[in-house]
Amino acid sequence: MIIQFEIALNPRKRGFHLITTEILGALPNLPRIGLLNLFIQHTSAGLTINENADPSVRIDFETIFNKLVPENDPDFIHVLEGKDDMPAHIKSSILNASITIPIENGKLALGTWQGIYLGEFRNHAGSRRLICTLYY
Amino acid sequence: MIIQFEIALNPRKRGFHLITTEILGALPNLPRIGLLNLFIQHTSAGLTINENADPSVRIDFETIFNKLVPENDPDFIHVLEGKDDMPAHIKSSILNASITIPIENGKLALGTWQGIYLGEFRNHAGSRRLICTLYY
Amino acid sequence: MIIQFEIALNPRKRGFHLITTEILGALPNLPRIGLLNLFIQHTSAGLTINENADPSVRIDFETIFNKLVPENDPDFIHVLEGKDDMPAHIKSSILNASITIPIENGKLALGTWQGIYLGEFRNHAGSRRLICTLYY
Repeated sequence: MIIQFEIALNPRKRGFHLITTEILGALPNLPRIGLLNLFIQHTSAGLTINENADPSVRIDFETIFNKLVPENDPDFIHVLEGKDDMPAHIKSSILNASITIPIENGKLALGTWQGIYLGEFRNHAGSRRLICTLYY
Repeated sequence: MIIQFEIALNPRKRGFHLITTEILGALPNLPRIGLLNLFIQHTSAGLTINENADPSVRIDFETIFNKLVPENDPDFIHVLEGKDDMPAHIKSSILNASITIPIENGKLALGTWQGIYLGEFRNHAGSRRLICTLYY
Repeated sequence: MIIQFEIALNPRKRGFHLITTEILGALPNLPRIGLLNLFIQHTSAGLTINENADPSVRIDFETIFNKLVPENDPDFIHVLEGKDDMPAHIKSSILNASITIPIENGKLALGTWQGIYLGEFRNHAGSRRLICTLYY
């Protein structure tokens, strides 16, 4: 069985954001066992799983990703869409366009400290669209 | 239902390459809803989803990945297979061996600006083999 | 068909470790065709696919990941759980919480040189729990 639906995430400012609650609110009743694939249809944002408790973790993520891919790199040639654009593409691929999460006992089988992150890498982005595919 | 087949990608020079057309050409008729998993059977190349329009994005990807994992790092100890070899392994894991793409309305549900990238990290590589698994 | 089970990995010291044999030993008889999803329920460790032969590759992985995300970064604000904690979260997302591997002819379809890696990013971690989901 496969069920598929779209989620339009609320727009968020640049940075890393916990979206677990928003995802859970959009899911139908879950099967006992299965897998959920989330796929973001954008190339300047990404998805990952990480720490769900301390907001300072998400701030440090933004700090470190900005160091890994600095905006002012003089070697960038794709610069017409703004200083944040090319770094956003790279960060999107370092993170991921897609994550797959198991479903166990009718719930997402996230560990105690795991949440779903949106990495928003543009300075002024709108809503981000996810394709959710549930198979069981 | 699961269908599985292999694709031997055309050899490409070192760098990031858009392979969407080559993948689409190898796919059978797609179901209305499903998922496609692409898995590359190599440890010095990788797959990701990113911008499909401006070739300068792929050039900047190569530039930045070479800065993230410099070839001349004196701390590398795995050096017998060439200066490009150990960085290729690291880059392969920063990118990914495998991507999962949803199928919606009988098509890959890529966003408007999304394409499938091969990251080729060796200086002189041959054809790369992908295992494609389609489930629906 | 979906089968799901948990694996408690043996505790390992900080670094990159080949866990292919441990995973294979925990798997049931595999179907002819399918996919295996491995999901680690922790935010300071990760999974990837990489070179399975030369142990020096895993040492270089540890070296480079420590350079990508240095422990002594004065800009970290999430520091209460130890100097290794925040870098561990970042490394976990650079690697991955989850990998999907095709099954072909009743075996994991890993390439000749591919193995499954655990990236253990804490100095003193215990057993790590994986959710394994096999669908075919």
